[in-house]
Amino acid sequence: MKLNKLLNPKNICVIGASEKEGFGGDTVRNMMKYMDDMSRVYLVNPRRDEVFNIPCYKSINDIDDEIDLVIICTPQSTVEGILRDASKKGCGGAVVYASGYSELGTDEGRKREEDLKALCEELQIALMGPNCAGFVNYPNNTQAFAFISNDRDRKGSVGLISQSGQIGLSLMESPNMRFSYIISAGNSSIVTMEQYLDYLIDDEETKVVAMYLEGIKNAKGFEECLKKAAIKRKPIVVLKVGKSAKASEIASSHTGSLAGADRVYDAIFKKFGVIRVDDIEELLATSQMLSVFNKLPENSNFATMSLSGGETGVCADLGEINGLNYCDFSKKTMDKLNELLPSYATPNNPLDMTASLSYDAELFAEALRTVMYDENVGTVCVGYTLLQEIADNAIYYMAKGIEMVMQEENSKPVVIVPFLENTRNEEYLNQLENIGVPVMPPAGYAFKILRYLADFINYNPKNVDLELAIPDVKGTGSTALSEYESKKLIKAYGVPTPIEEVAKDVEEAVELSQSIGYPIVMKIDSVDILHKSDIGGVKLNIKNEEEVRKAFDEILHNAKTHKPDARIGGVLVQSMAKMGSEVIVGVSSDSQFGPSILCGLGGVFVEVFKDTSLCPVPVSKKEALSMITNLKSFKLLDGYRGNAKLDIDALADLIVSISDFAKDNKNTLKELDINPIFVYEKGLSAVDALVINYENIDGCESKNQEEKEYTLC
Amino acid sequence: MKLNKLLNPKNICVIGASEKEGFGGDTVRNMMKYMDDMSRVYLVNPRRDEVFNIPCYKSINDIDDEIDLVIICTPQSTVEGILRDASKKGCGGAVVYASGYSELGTDEGRKREEDLKALCEELQIALMGPNCAGFVNYPNNTQAFAFISNDRDRKGSVGLISQSGQIGLSLMESPNMRFSYIISAGNSSIVTMEQYLDYLIDDEETKVVAMYLEGIKNAKGFEECLKKAAIKRKPIVVLKVGKSAKASEIASSHTGSLAGADRVYDAIFKKFGVIRVDDIEELLATSQMLSVFNKLPENSNFATMSLSGGETGVCADLGEINGLNYCDFSKKTMDKLNELLPSYATPNNPLDMTASLSYDAELFAEALRTVMYDENVGTVCVGYTLLQEIADNAIYYMAKGIEMVMQEENSKPVVIVPFLENTRNEEYLNQLENIGVPVMPPAGYAFKILRYLADFINYNPKNVDLELAIPDVKGTGSTALSEYESKKLIKAYGVPTPIEEVAKDVEEAVELSQSIGYPIVMKIDSVDILHKSDIGGVKLNIKNEEEVRKAFDEILHNAKTHKPDARIGGVLVQSMAKMGSEVIVGVSSDSQFGPSILCGLGGVFVEVFKDTSLCPVPVSKKEALSMITNLKSFKLLDGYRGNAKLDIDALADLIVSISDFAKDNKNTLKELDINPIFVYEKGLSAVDALVINYENIDGCESKNQEEKEYTLC
Repeated sequence: MKLNKLLNPKNICVIGASEKEGFGGDTVRNMMKYMDDMSRVYLVNPRRDEVFNIPCYKSINDIDDEIDLVIICTPQSTVEGILRDASKKGCGGAVVYASGYSELGTDEGRKREEDLKALCEELQIALMGPNCAGFVNYPNNTQAFAFISNDRDRKGSVGLISQSGQIGLSLMESPNMRFSYIISAGNSSIVTMEQYLDYLIDDEETKVVAMYLEGIKNAKGFEECLKKAAIKRKPIVVLKVGKSAKASEIASSHTGSLAGADRVYDAIFKKFGVIRVDDIEELLATSQMLSVFNKLPENSNFATMSLSGGETGVCADLGEINGLNYCDFSKKTMDKLNELLPSYATPNNPLDMTASLSYDAELFAEALRTVMYDENVGTVCVGYTLLQEIADNAIYYMAKGIEMVMQEENSKPVVIVPFLENTRNEEYLNQLENIGVPVMPPAGYAFKILRYLADFINYNPKNVDLELAIPDVKGTGSTALSEYESKKLIKAYGVPTPIEEVAKDVEEAVELSQSIGYPIVMKIDSVDILHKSDIGGVKLNIKNEEEVRKAFDEILHNAKTHKPDARIGGVLVQSMAKMGSEVIVGVSSDSQFGPSILCGLGGVFVEVFKDTSLCPVPVSKKEALSMITNLKSFKLLDGYRGNAKLDIDALADLIVSISDFAKDNKNTLKELDINPIFVYEKGLSAVDALVINYENIDGCESKNQEEKEYTLC
Repeated sequence: MKLNKLLNPKNICVIGASEKEGFGGDTVRNMMKYMDDMSRVYLVNPRRDEVFNIPCYKSINDIDDEIDLVIICTPQSTVEGILRDASKKGCGGAVVYASGYSELGTDEGRKREEDLKALCEELQIALMGPNCAGFVNYPNNTQAFAFISNDRDRKGSVGLISQSGQIGLSLMESPNMRFSYIISAGNSSIVTMEQYLDYLIDDEETKVVAMYLEGIKNAKGFEECLKKAAIKRKPIVVLKVGKSAKASEIASSHTGSLAGADRVYDAIFKKFGVIRVDDIEELLATSQMLSVFNKLPENSNFATMSLSGGETGVCADLGEINGLNYCDFSKKTMDKLNELLPSYATPNNPLDMTASLSYDAELFAEALRTVMYDENVGTVCVGYTLLQEIADNAIYYMAKGIEMVMQEENSKPVVIVPFLENTRNEEYLNQLENIGVPVMPPAGYAFKILRYLADFINYNPKNVDLELAIPDVKGTGSTALSEYESKKLIKAYGVPTPIEEVAKDVEEAVELSQSIGYPIVMKIDSVDILHKSDIGGVKLNIKNEEEVRKAFDEILHNAKTHKPDARIGGVLVQSMAKMGSEVIVGVSSDSQFGPSILCGLGGVFVEVFKDTSLCPVPVSKKEALSMITNLKSFKLLDGYRGNAKLDIDALADLIVSISDFAKDNKNTLKELDINPIFVYEKGLSAVDALVINYENIDGCESKNQEEKEYTLC
């Protein structure tokens, strides 16, 4: 469904227009305050002749004009009739403030919302809400918003989409925020979050998309948006609550969205270069910063310049806490700074430029230039607490100096980092932001946000597979494959495994052992025994025929004793892989977004330190390599304590192979564990594997998929 | 030296009083604006008859009165003469704004400061500075401050000491900060940071001490202050830069303080319950919060109440990120909330109370009461963005509701957590803080600060040894002891070690082996070979006489081949300890603060994951236990994967023993490594140890110490 009539309408009709407080009154008040052209607005109220001196229609049917957008300020019970009437006027968009739908959490509420959705599809009306606060389109000066906020020019280039009306309103209240669009999406089941996102990614007035997201309805649509934005390099900044178990509960009770597992969201955002923030202030400041910049920094190195040693020390510490790279200055820069600074100052990055430069615009400009044009520097942070009430005039000279430099053709991005909250004089704030210099929140936030900036700059869409393997169907239940069957599947994708066969009887076991070559390993082969060692179902380092015979009997005996009902296929006879560093690679499948690959070092590293990487399928070779090198325990693979470096390249290849396997089987594969993989100086061996498939799959249509399923089931 | 005449003076004399901008003019302007009683202020300027209509003296000698404090606004060259003159008037305190001393980083500057210090000792004058901005004493209305800030009532109960004038000034500019004292200590080499700290800990008007600290001059004095504050439970909030290597460089170039190793500071702050913050905003907000509370929370459980699901989700996530404990509500609380909240709301902690309660003071008060008086709750966080310009009147009703509840006798602490920066309407801010409810900076800061609060509440001075083992002398150089000598020393403190003796020849080795009992371990005994394994100087699992003979020859041969000059004492014959979990315990000595104990699990846990605990000596048993249980890898000792729980108690005893050893040898011990210690289900064994002493010790006077040194040298 196209959103143009909804979000960029020509003629608008307000149903329930009024002069009272409330939806009808506040919507009209907002329109009158901010819209230049009220001639394209029609007001409807059966009980009024005029509202605020504007003539009022009894019904939408009385209007003799086309209507693009209808804003419904009246209660839930009136909505259906109004939509039907509006449709006759060519209406293609509606805003519904009324609540009483799925957010009630009742069956009745959900039913009402489904009926409303069906009606909108029938009438081809893009409906915002229900249970929303509406929207503002700033470039086109269109107001369809239910709440009054302070009188302020908010026109800018951040497009905001929020599933919470309160958060949208909060951001409007910040004097530091400028918008292209504000969209309070409400229940967002008719026009969905990903449809708004798609619209704003295409919108040329929107430089940055900011989102408060509780959950996604259409994973495929979401994927396509993220891909488009990644290729365009249009920043998306997302606040998605649900990191904690408690937040997940709240989000699902709030608008009824089903929050996907949180770590999967994290991994998807990383894949597509989406900036995920932790709170509302970060959402505001990150998106505002990106929208203010005249251009993005060319690299992720930072330099800071502050007026005192204490502030410079804070910049140094917070830079380290947030992993920022303060590059060393070149000799040329150092020499020039030595000329400019007082004799007792030492030029370093972070730079304590002392207060002496801040009362001379020319001198300050020269110092800024010196730091900025250092070949290594990407962004300059000027540390200065811009107070509300200016008692000291340093900022006058500094702002002037900054302006001189920002006018130069090759100037690089500059941000102002204050050290205290509740600051930011509005006049200077605007003056600085108008020349492309964002004024950040205080240092604790600022340096964290610069970390986001660095990640965004370092992100390269060419290094990743810009796709997800979203399942076409919904699987339930689970059914495990034996180790032998599991490994056969991954071997077909090129994963190195030990030589192995299942022996039905002891003679076959002896024969197999001889053809494979001693030493060998023997394991019980049964889909019903997943933890083979625990029941004495594994024998290692078997060196001759006698031992084979003994092991065969013992394994079968143990299995029958411990699990009398288990279906037994025989005994797996396997070449014994030489020991290597243990690595785990696994797959887990999210019902919305499909399989992701996990990798980590075996044992305590995964279990105690939770040191794992996660990446949604498909995983490119570069993504696989960065999954490995981003592990804290990567050092252990990379020549730890004089040991040889292990074959990271082979491990990355294995991850890519498993990604291919998971992608091909996205509808059927529920879980996969390859544990352990022995990684060597050259090559590796997947010693054990376990595939768990969904037991039931509904509505599978793809022939190709069915074939794949067959090989797995 | 007493600080009363400096910080709480009766008569004050301003040298260089003037009407111009600058030190002399601004100091007098500050006095005239804020001091009730100018009759106790004498102005001196040889070139004026009056300043701002106040009669002016040509010289301090002309004043016919006692002078407690002299504020010297004139240049460095005049300081000495003025101090001598002032001394004749009974002066006991001086503020010196002038720079030109040690902060220059030159020998001349340092010499000048030493001379000034000697003069102050001679005259018994407590001198603030030099190179400082002065101080304000709010309870006594005394201004001795060099810079003008906005006109505002700042009287409160935070005592601030700052080694940076800029940071002091910044905090004054915040509308949210109320002080008992502001002290800009400058170079702080005459009256030192720890002396100001001592004064404020004793000061009854000061509820909280806030400090910007670059380094400490007198470790012993600092220790005594921290101990006193810990016992009194008076909060000290410290911003100490130097976490990063870059910040350390800056701090030492700034005022010439020698920053101790940063991790040692961290460990000392933890021992004494000092709150360490990461930036200026945290320093402000943490100390202001603690000063506003009517009383401290009784436990570290939190409950949050916000107006929307989105905000509640942010509270949940940031609570988890900061490790806050949101307790479950009792059934009684849940039932009551179900009555109060709209039907679609679910009562949980964090609580989304929906916007519906925020326009009815009585109802809001009842909801707050319900949450507050839940038996598990310690502090209630009300999530609400208090805007500068109030467009929505919810805060009117909420503030009223909060006030009703805060008046009740058993009310518990409440904080307001906003979600956006640049907010905080001053009228409501004051209204709320006057009833004991701090308004925090936005959520990213607020929840981190509540973590500090939780740690402060959970701190119990009774669990720690409130001391440091500060060395009396300064050691340099280093000299290693052999494994045998090292272990003899720690064995004397009760540390279990294998049975061992040094064999001078092979026959002695055979004899020893037999008396110890096989299997044994043999190692080269030499103070010149610290890495014995690397040169083939260790043989394990020796089972009989023949092997002993062979090992003896090989070890000596290897040692002589690889290190021909090494002094060799023989071969150490040792009972072979059975394998256990490997733990490392070590000591490292800080030249200012003395020895600290480090502990961690052996190998990669220490080396790759840097998973270690550090505690300054002396370490109490409770401190030792928490050092162990705070390790991330503690799980591995505590019954990991069905293994037996290991003997944590014995390990804590070992740590305490090593602490005793390090305390007794604080002047001589440079480093100690016990690596590995095998920890068992019952007991443990320190298998290898290495003591490194200082080679040279200057000025040791303690007889006791000398004896101890003898045993070590």
